[in-house]
Amino acid sequence: MSDTTVQARAAFPDIAIVNATVLPMGGAPAIEGGFVTISGNTISAVGRAADLDAPPAVRTIDAAGRVVMPGFVNAHTHIGSNMLLRGLLEDVQLFEWLQTMWKMKRNFDSETLYWASLAGLVEMLKAGITTFNEHFDAYAVTPQIEALKKVPLRATLGYGFADRGVYASITDWSWKALDTFGDRVAAHHRSGNDRVHLGLSPHAPYSCGAELFTRVREVADAFGVVIHTHLAEAPQEQAYVAEQYGTTPVKWLHSLGFLKSDVTAAHCTQLDDDDIRILAETGTRIAHCPCCNAKLNSGTLRLRCVCEAGISVGLGTDGPASHNSLDMFQEMKFAGMIHKDKTGDVEFLKTGELLELATRRAAEAMNRRETGELVPGRKADVIIVDLDTIHAAPVYDVSAALVYSAKAEDVRTVIVDGQVLMEERTLTGIDEAEIRARFREAALALRDRSL
Amino acid sequence: MSDTTVQARAAFPDIAIVNATVLPMGGAPAIEGGFVTISGNTISAVGRAADLDAPPAVRTIDAAGRVVMPGFVNAHTHIGSNMLLRGLLEDVQLFEWLQTMWKMKRNFDSETLYWASLAGLVEMLKAGITTFNEHFDAYAVTPQIEALKKVPLRATLGYGFADRGVYASITDWSWKALDTFGDRVAAHHRSGNDRVHLGLSPHAPYSCGAELFTRVREVADAFGVVIHTHLAEAPQEQAYVAEQYGTTPVKWLHSLGFLKSDVTAAHCTQLDDDDIRILAETGTRIAHCPCCNAKLNSGTLRLRCVCEAGISVGLGTDGPASHNSLDMFQEMKFAGMIHKDKTGDVEFLKTGELLELATRRAAEAMNRRETGELVPGRKADVIIVDLDTIHAAPVYDVSAALVYSAKAEDVRTVIVDGQVLMEERTLTGIDEAEIRARFREAALALRDRSL
Repeated sequence: MSDTTVQARAAFPDIAIVNATVLPMGGAPAIEGGFVTISGNTISAVGRAADLDAPPAVRTIDAAGRVVMPGFVNAHTHIGSNMLLRGLLEDVQLFEWLQTMWKMKRNFDSETLYWASLAGLVEMLKAGITTFNEHFDAYAVTPQIEALKKVPLRATLGYGFADRGVYASITDWSWKALDTFGDRVAAHHRSGNDRVHLGLSPHAPYSCGAELFTRVREVADAFGVVIHTHLAEAPQEQAYVAEQYGTTPVKWLHSLGFLKSDVTAAHCTQLDDDDIRILAETGTRIAHCPCCNAKLNSGTLRLRCVCEAGISVGLGTDGPASHNSLDMFQEMKFAGMIHKDKTGDVEFLKTGELLELATRRAAEAMNRRETGELVPGRKADVIIVDLDTIHAAPVYDVSAALVYSAKAEDVRTVIVDGQVLMEERTLTGIDEAEIRARFREAALALRDRSL
Repeated sequence: MSDTTVQARAAFPDIAIVNATVLPMGGAPAIEGGFVTISGNTISAVGRAADLDAPPAVRTIDAAGRVVMPGFVNAHTHIGSNMLLRGLLEDVQLFEWLQTMWKMKRNFDSETLYWASLAGLVEMLKAGITTFNEHFDAYAVTPQIEALKKVPLRATLGYGFADRGVYASITDWSWKALDTFGDRVAAHHRSGNDRVHLGLSPHAPYSCGAELFTRVREVADAFGVVIHTHLAEAPQEQAYVAEQYGTTPVKWLHSLGFLKSDVTAAHCTQLDDDDIRILAETGTRIAHCPCCNAKLNSGTLRLRCVCEAGISVGLGTDGPASHNSLDMFQEMKFAGMIHKDKTGDVEFLKTGELLELATRRAAEAMNRRETGELVPGRKADVIIVDLDTIHAAPVYDVSAALVYSAKAEDVRTVIVDGQVLMEERTLTGIDEAEIRARFREAALALRDRSL
């Protein structure tokens, strides 16, 4: 880099995206002929060229005719191990499903999990997902952190713990890992990587006992890390908790003092009115996964009640083993199709609100408020979307086109933490073909040695 | 073309697609390392290279690592006028919706409808839809037939008629058009175009009176053409028919002698057990549009009961004004998500069956049995799909990957009636950019002069 360039970097933003339709989110109106500037890993300005000329930048991206918006935030997923089960078990009974899954899991190795994690990261990147909330199998931690060095999305990685039922085999590991979690957090902090956060992921009320949830709460409070769990996902969970503890999963966790605003609870399809009140009062957040819940016939989140109670809620894809696509366009569209028009109130869940649920509100739901909005000072997680396609035409309304017509393939350029990771659908410094081939090879080898 | 080539055409198939995973449909198993040959507009052979070497052909397409299957069949849609309303009216009350729609419709012109039809055809082509069942506004007939010369998909075009409610304004036109329909059919037959069929499309039981339905039945019988209508779409229709005629829409049409196996009825979300028995006994066919029904909150087809009753049923997208995407991947996936797993019977609606509903069974449901299957003698409507993508990986099972992970963009090559219309996502002899630009321009001009 020449001296001149270094001076320019000091004086001007690193990137200016100009001539765009900017959707800042957070309720702010769309800006026609707008610009967004990025300095380092931060958004430095957002505006209209007519009001204030976009400052000259080291690099200018002309986004004429395109939409610039915050990257999507996936509030609940499992990549890594879960990628290895996608499409394997669609039309089988639960028993066969579990048996096959455990046969596969017994043969997981770091190399396979590394390529699976990379594949999941690339799939999200290509769909414009810049931040995700990972609930992962404990043994997948190291390969996933390695993969995030190669494909640097923003992430919160929740260490998975469990000690009941089919998960009893990881009881010892879970307790030991909780005891050493402080060291891990300290080491991670020393690494200075603020893009990736560590968190705690007790699996669910049917797979973790009261002692484990209580211990997770102590560790979370001690180290100031977030918690990410499954909660009230399906009728079977309600029945189990009713039998074991004589109450609902939400009330049981509340009785343990577990629920606070640092908890993101995935699914919540089984909430009664008291559960909703408790979640609202404790500030517990919800990751809503409409596609997965429908596919597994788990039930449906009472989205309107949850929103009216003031609960923080955002959308998530869940893992590819249950819903098969790491694609927030599908979640937005599906959420619109199943929740909208049920009350006759057209003001509820307008297309702009569905976009908020997939960006800003998802970021809030996973306690990562530094992203999800194009506001100066927020992290520079930005996507450029092309709506000049036959399948979105004629585009009378940008939000409607994004929610109901656009597809993941329409995301052209992705910037995470100020870095351009995809440009005009070509990944920067990432060999997609190699990742695809190595993942496929590793997965088929895993199946062949497991089944 | 040289003499040698002409001789080759006589002796060999025109196209051989080789090295593929062939999904013939019709319950036939997938063929690994398979081939499909096409002679003229017809499939001439389907097999495994090991059993019988693929015959040398004028042109060979290597589909190594890809899936070759029948093109998708869209059993119910409205392009043309409907394309002009996509995304315009997402979050508005019914009254505003109707008022705006009629303001737009009053200003339709042939040129605008031509570009809208072309855009719809290109969207379907790029999504691998090779045959569609069009229920169209009567005034869109000529522009649509013109557009089908440019983008030659297989189609049944149903002339739309109505004489009640908001449709009363086309009463005179409807009756006159019915009287002259014989001349139109005769003229069309003389044109020798067997790819495009003409049919009759009375709108719905709430928009057509008994006399109109009876007259349509007479004309259909007289000229041997099919009928395509909306039926039992939503609770409002049931209420209207109950009030007017004291029965259900299905029973009312049956009492008129209207229902026969030449009728394709779209939606049917409101069927009682007697309705299902009547549809089965009369051989009436159903076009199931799960996405549109969910988005408009119309209700849900009792798919399992309908299948068990032996009724012919296939999937359709409906028009882009109601569901926004002419994309059978979305319909298959959505149908799987909402119908599968509800009974605990994993044998029902396996992924292979969802593919049948989008191909062979959709062709049967619109009475076009010459397509929808890769069987010698059937029309050469073939697509090549790439599953070697990050979002479908690792592909343990081809059907599961096609239904739950693949996307319209994965369709690489499309052949209709033996003609290659898209090759590696590039359209053959069709200027997509011009169609996109002209459609957009025409639509925005229409809005500006209407609203």
